[in-house]
Amino acid sequence: MEHYVGVDIGGTNIVCGLTDEAGNVLATSKMATESDKGGEHVVRRIGEAIRKLAEEAGVQVKAVGIGVPGFVDHKQGISVLAVNLGWKDFPIAGNVSRELNGVPVFVNNDVRMYTYGEAVAGAGRGYANVLGITLGTGLAAAMINDGQLYYGAGGRAGEMGHIGMEGIPYRCNCGLTGCLETAVSASGIARQAKDAVAQGKPTLLAQLFPGDRLDSLTAADVSRAYDQGDAVAREIMEHTGKLLGKGLASAITLFSPDVIVIGGGAALAGDRLFRPMREELERSALDFYWKDLQIKAAERNEDAGVVGSALYAKERVQGLQA
Amino acid sequence: MEHYVGVDIGGTNIVCGLTDEAGNVLATSKMATESDKGGEHVVRRIGEAIRKLAEEAGVQVKAVGIGVPGFVDHKQGISVLAVNLGWKDFPIAGNVSRELNGVPVFVNNDVRMYTYGEAVAGAGRGYANVLGITLGTGLAAAMINDGQLYYGAGGRAGEMGHIGMEGIPYRCNCGLTGCLETAVSASGIARQAKDAVAQGKPTLLAQLFPGDRLDSLTAADVSRAYDQGDAVAREIMEHTGKLLGKGLASAITLFSPDVIVIGGGAALAGDRLFRPMREELERSALDFYWKDLQIKAAERNEDAGVVGSALYAKERVQGLQA
Repeated sequence: MEHYVGVDIGGTNIVCGLTDEAGNVLATSKMATESDKGGEHVVRRIGEAIRKLAEEAGVQVKAVGIGVPGFVDHKQGISVLAVNLGWKDFPIAGNVSRELNGVPVFVNNDVRMYTYGEAVAGAGRGYANVLGITLGTGLAAAMINDGQLYYGAGGRAGEMGHIGMEGIPYRCNCGLTGCLETAVSASGIARQAKDAVAQGKPTLLAQLFPGDRLDSLTAADVSRAYDQGDAVAREIMEHTGKLLGKGLASAITLFSPDVIVIGGGAALAGDRLFRPMREELERSALDFYWKDLQIKAAERNEDAGVVGSALYAKERVQGLQA
Repeated sequence: MEHYVGVDIGGTNIVCGLTDEAGNVLATSKMATESDKGGEHVVRRIGEAIRKLAEEAGVQVKAVGIGVPGFVDHKQGISVLAVNLGWKDFPIAGNVSRELNGVPVFVNNDVRMYTYGEAVAGAGRGYANVLGITLGTGLAAAMINDGQLYYGAGGRAGEMGHIGMEGIPYRCNCGLTGCLETAVSASGIARQAKDAVAQGKPTLLAQLFPGDRLDSLTAADVSRAYDQGDAVAREIMEHTGKLLGKGLASAITLFSPDVIVIGGGAALAGDRLFRPMREELERSALDFYWKDLQIKAAERNEDAGVVGSALYAKERVQGLQA
C-alpha cells in the first residue's frame, strides 16, 4: 500500500491529509496559515506536519500534492501569484520537497485540486468531463476533460467568475464591471441582500441586521429569510440562480461537461439557488447539452482539496497527469 | 516518405488531397458531393478519387482522414448526424476503408479538422492552445488544448455559435433566440443588411439590391458598401464585431487560448470586423487573457480542412491523437 499527502493551503488555515492510494483519508492535521511570517515559515510548518502524520501512521509518503490559491505554475511547482498569502514566484514545491528529504512534491491551483478531488472521489466520480465550481468569496471554476485537468495558455483557463453579464451593476476587484462573481457567490448574495436593506426594501433581513450589524449578514442568512417566506430574499436567490444559469449555459456550450459539481458556502443554499439556475440554463442552452447533464452539490466540501491534492500527486508520480 | 489523404466533405463539394507526412499538399481532386444519391455512392466516389490520386503519384496511402459536417463519433468513425448530407449513424470510416482494401480511415467533425489544419500548418502554427472559428453560414468553433483536440461529453464541445447574446433578436434554426451565429456569420451579416434595407434605412445597398434582388445580398456586398463610406454598412460591421468580441471574451476566459484563428467567408471582412471585435474583447475580458493573445485570419481557408484531415489521420495512426 502506498501513501500520499494532500495539502490545502487557504488564507486562514492549512489542512494536511494522509491518504492511501485510493484517496481514503487516514489522518489529517489543521493549523493556522500564518502567512504573515513568510513563505519559509509556512514551508517548515507543512514539512513538520507531514513528517508527524507519516510517523504517527508508521508509513512512508510517496508524494505530496499541494493546492495553492491564485496562479500556479504546476509544471515548475511555483506559486506565481497568491495575493492572500503574499507570495509571488515562490517555489513552494521545491522548498517543501527539501524539507521532506526529496519526497516529490507537486502543486496546483486550489480549485483545480478541489475539482480533481470531487471528480475522482466525490460527486463527479465516474464521469470523464467534470466542471467544478465553488461559490465562496468569489466564483472559481476548473474543468477536467477526459480525465485530464484543463489549463489553457498560462494555466489561466476557467475564470468563469470573470465572465461579464448583463444585469450585474457591480464593479469587480479585477477592474471590470459586471463580473459574474460579484453577484453569484456567497459574498455576492450577501452583497445583494445588504443593498436591498440599504435601499429600504421590505425584508426580514432589515430587522435582523439593523444599522451597524448589516456587515455581518451572510448568504446563509438570506437562505434563512427565504425559508421564512421573505419575498426579497426569494428574489435575490431567483436572480442569482438565473445569472448562474446563464453563465453555465455559455460554459456548457463551450466545454460540454458530463457533470457540474457545485461547492462552496453558497452551494448550501441548495434548490433555493439550483432550481432557478437549472430553469435558466434549460432556457438558454441547446437541449442536447443539458438533457443528460448532471448538476450536483459537492460531496466533499470539507476535504475535496486534500483528497484531490493527494491523488493529483499520485497521478503526477505515475506520469498520468500533466 | 509516408503519404496521407485528407478529405473535406461539404454540402456542395468534396475535396480530396494527397499530402506528405509534413502536410504538404501534393495533389488534390474536387467533385460534386451528390449526397442525394446516397451515402454508398459518396463512399465509392471518395474511394475512386483516393485510388486515382495515389496511382497518379505512384505512392501508397498510409491513412485517410475525413472531415464531415455535423456530429461525428470520431472514436467509432461514424457520422452521427449530418443534416445537409442526409446522414444519420452512417459508418463512413469503415465504408471508405473497405473501398481502399483496409487502409485505416479516421473521421472527425469538419471544424475540428479545419482548426487542426490551421493549428499544425496555418495561422496557429507553433501554439499549443488554438481556438478556431469559421464565420460562414453559421459560426462554428473548435478548440485545441495543449496540442489535443478538445471534445467534451459526446464530442459536443465548442458550439460557440449557439451562445445566447443580449441584443440579438433573431430566432435560430436550433429553436433558441439570440444565438450568436444568427448575427455573427456571413449569413448573419447579410441578414442584418437585408433587414436594414427592408426597414428603409438610408444605404447604398438599397439601390444596389432593389426589391427582388435583395435575396442575393451577401456579406461581401456589406464590405464593399462599407468601403464606399456607407454608414449603415459600417454600423452593421461595428455591431457584428462587438457581438463577436463579447462572445470571444467569454470563450477566452473559459478556454484561455494562445491564438484565435478566424476563417470562413465573413473573415474576409478583415479589420472592418476585427477592429470593433478586438476593442470589445479588450473591454469585456481580463487583460491577462488578451494582452498576449494573438488573433489571426486563417491562412488556409482553401485547404485547412484537407491538411487537417490528413495530419489528423497521421496522428491517429501513431496514437498521438484521441
